[in-house]
Amino acid sequence: MFRVITLQQARGEVERMWKTPKVKRVRIEEGLGKILAEDVKARVDFPPFDRAAMDGYAVRAEDTFEADEEKAIVLRNLGLVKAGEIPHLTVHEGACVRIETGAPMPEGSNAVVPVEFTRGVKSVEIYRSVAVGENVVKRGSRMKKGDKIVEKNRELTAAMIGALAAGGVRTVRVFLPPKVGILSTGRELVPLDGTLRKGKVFDVNGPMLCCAVQELGCQGVFLGIAPDEPRILKRKIEEGLRTCDALIVTGGTSAGVGDLLPSSLPSVFHGLATKPGKPTLFAMVSGKPVFGLPGNPLSAFFLFRELVAPNLLRMSGRKMEQRTVRARLSVDLTSERGRQEFVLVRLRKEGGELKVEPLRMGSDAITLLRLADGYLDIPLEVERIRAGERVVVKLLAR
Amino acid sequence: MFRVITLQQARGEVERMWKTPKVKRVRIEEGLGKILAEDVKARVDFPPFDRAAMDGYAVRAEDTFEADEEKAIVLRNLGLVKAGEIPHLTVHEGACVRIETGAPMPEGSNAVVPVEFTRGVKSVEIYRSVAVGENVVKRGSRMKKGDKIVEKNRELTAAMIGALAAGGVRTVRVFLPPKVGILSTGRELVPLDGTLRKGKVFDVNGPMLCCAVQELGCQGVFLGIAPDEPRILKRKIEEGLRTCDALIVTGGTSAGVGDLLPSSLPSVFHGLATKPGKPTLFAMVSGKPVFGLPGNPLSAFFLFRELVAPNLLRMSGRKMEQRTVRARLSVDLTSERGRQEFVLVRLRKEGGELKVEPLRMGSDAITLLRLADGYLDIPLEVERIRAGERVVVKLLAR
Repeated sequence: MFRVITLQQARGEVERMWKTPKVKRVRIEEGLGKILAEDVKARVDFPPFDRAAMDGYAVRAEDTFEADEEKAIVLRNLGLVKAGEIPHLTVHEGACVRIETGAPMPEGSNAVVPVEFTRGVKSVEIYRSVAVGENVVKRGSRMKKGDKIVEKNRELTAAMIGALAAGGVRTVRVFLPPKVGILSTGRELVPLDGTLRKGKVFDVNGPMLCCAVQELGCQGVFLGIAPDEPRILKRKIEEGLRTCDALIVTGGTSAGVGDLLPSSLPSVFHGLATKPGKPTLFAMVSGKPVFGLPGNPLSAFFLFRELVAPNLLRMSGRKMEQRTVRARLSVDLTSERGRQEFVLVRLRKEGGELKVEPLRMGSDAITLLRLADGYLDIPLEVERIRAGERVVVKLLAR
Repeated sequence: MFRVITLQQARGEVERMWKTPKVKRVRIEEGLGKILAEDVKARVDFPPFDRAAMDGYAVRAEDTFEADEEKAIVLRNLGLVKAGEIPHLTVHEGACVRIETGAPMPEGSNAVVPVEFTRGVKSVEIYRSVAVGENVVKRGSRMKKGDKIVEKNRELTAAMIGALAAGGVRTVRVFLPPKVGILSTGRELVPLDGTLRKGKVFDVNGPMLCCAVQELGCQGVFLGIAPDEPRILKRKIEEGLRTCDALIVTGGTSAGVGDLLPSSLPSVFHGLATKPGKPTLFAMVSGKPVFGLPGNPLSAFFLFRELVAPNLLRMSGRKMEQRTVRARLSVDLTSERGRQEFVLVRLRKEGGELKVEPLRMGSDAITLLRLADGYLDIPLEVERIRAGERVVVKLLAR
C-alpha cells in the first residue's frame, strides 16, 4: 500500500520541513508560561533612587556618631518625606527629616535612624549612631539598568515577571506556541452534542486532540467533522490553514486520511513502521504542516504523543520531557519485528514491588486510557520481552 | 502594634472561614486541567454496537470451519456495509457481506474474515476459518454504560477526555478554581505602562501576583493601583468582590494594608510571626476572603506562596505540591527566634556536591528572584543553622 519509514525518520522529516518557530513581542503578563526568545535586561536601576529601608529619620550619619542608648544627640526635624513623594528638603548639619520606608532620601542625608531609636517630634532625640548608608537602599544596588534579568530559553514564571516589572520591562519576545486546527473525518462519527444513531460512534479525536494540544501550552481549535469527500476535505484543510499554524486531520476508521487527501496535497511521507499508527501521513500545504493521523482514537493518541507533540513543543521553544519509570513486566509480551510498538500498561504493586501489566485489547480500545498509567515503547527489532524483565514505562501523567 | 499569630494558625483560620469550594458543570473540554468533583460514568456502551475490527467479510463462523489455505470455501457476497451505515442485509447460511472496519455487523453474522484471506467479489473464496466473535468488537466489550471512567478528585487530562467522549459523556462537574482580584496600593507605585518619575517605583505586585494566581490554574484579575485612602480602598474592595471570589490587596511600602483597611472591614487576623510578612492581614468581606499582603514585593511573594496559594489550591480541589531538595548550607545562618523566616537561596555545585547559598540582601530585593532557585523555611524556634548542615530547600520551579 505504501512504503513505510521509521518513526525516527518521520520525526527528522517533520523537523526538516517545519523549521522556524514563531516569535512574538508580548506584554510580560502574556508571556507567563512561555519560553523567552531573548535575554531580557533591566531598563531601569532598581531601586531607581536612594531610598529609606525603614521608617525613621534621614540624617547625616556623621551627626549621630556620638549618640548611644545612654546619651541622645538632638537634631532639628525639618519635615516629612512620604513614599512616592519628591523630597524638597535638604538635611544640613544638625538637622533631620522624618522619612517613610521606600521614600527617596532627601539631599544631604546619607543614613536613616529607625524611629524606635528616637524620641520627640520637632527636636528629635537620637539614641543610636548609624554608619553612612545604614538603612538606605542605594539606587541600582539591587539591579542595574542593563543587568540581565532572565536568559533566553527560560520559561517565564510569576517570580521572574516580578523581577521584570521591578526592572521596568514591559514586553518580552517569546516563542509563540503554534495554533493547531483539529479536523476529524469519518462517516461513522457524531459530535458529542449529537444523537448516537445506530452504526455511529461519538467523535473522540476532536475533543481529545484539542485538549492534548492545549496540555502542551498550544492553542487547539476544533474545525469539526468533515465528510469523507476528498474535495470538501481539501477545502476544509485550506480554510483551516488560513487561521492555524498547523493542522491535525484524523481519518475515520473506514478510510485513512491518505485515501482522502487529494493527490494535489502531496505527502512528505505516508506510512510508519509503528503499531499502531501505520497509516500516518505528513504533508506541507501552503508552507504549513498537516499531520494525518489514524482515525482510531488510541492510534491517534499514540501518534500525537510520539510524532506531533515533540514538534509542537520544539516550535514553542521547548523540549519534550517524558517522565518514565523502570519496573518488571508481569507477563511475556510478543511484538511484531520491524514495527515499533506502543502498548498501554498499568502499574501495580505486587509484594512491595512495582509490576508492569500490559493492557492489550486491540488498538480500538480508547477506553483503556482510563485504566492506563503509561505505555511501553518497544523498538522495531524486539520480538519478545519475557515476564520479569525490567522495562521502561513512559508515564501519561506529567 | 498587633498581636501576631503563627503562619500555621493563620492557615487554620483561613480554612475555617473560607470553606466551600465552587463546583460547576462544564463541557468536558472546558474541564481540562481541572479536578473532578464527581465520579464519572459512561453514558453509552463502547462500542455502542457489535462492529468489525478489520476490513473483510462478515460471515457465520460455522460456515468457515472447513476453510484453510489449501482449500477455500465459497460464500455468496450480498453487498457492502460501510462504517457509519446501518446494515439492512442478513447473513444466512452460505452468504457473506463485505464490511469495513468499524461498520456494524449485519444480522446473522458473528465473525469477520480479513480481506487478505479472501479472493473474488461476487462469489468469495474464503481461505481461513474464523471462530465465533473473531475480528468483531462486541457492543460494550470495551466499556459498559454505567462503568466508572474517572474517579472524583482526579485531574482531567486529554487522555481521560478521550475516554469520556467514547463513553458519551458531554459534561462533568469540576471544582471551579477561584477568580482572584489583585489590588495594589501605595502612593509610590506607577503602573508598568506609566512614566517613572522621581520618587516612584513600578508596581511589581500587580503583574506578579496576577501571574502567580494563574500559575495555580486560577483566574487572576488586576484591579489596578488604589490610592492610600481608606474610603476609596474600601469601595474598590467591595467592587472587586462583586465579580471575584477572593481578593489580594498589597500595601504600599509606606503603609500596611492594615493601616488602610477601614475598621468597618474587621480582620480575622492581623500580624504573622513570619519574616518577612509580619503586616499580613486576613478579613472576610461580604462572605468573601480578602488577603492583605505586605507591599514589599518579596514579602508579598513569600506570603502569597505560603498563605494564599495553599488555599487557592484547596478551593480548586487540589493539594499544594512543593518540590524540595536537601543539600548542605554553605555558610552559617542566623534567624530571629519566634519568627518563621524565609530566605531565598541559590543552589551551586561545589566539588560534585550541591550547596545551598543564601541570598540575603534585605526583604526589598525582589530582583533576587531572578537568581534564586528556592528558599529556606526556617522554623520559629531555630536561631542558627551552621555551615555544612543539611537543609531542605523549597524549589521555585514546578
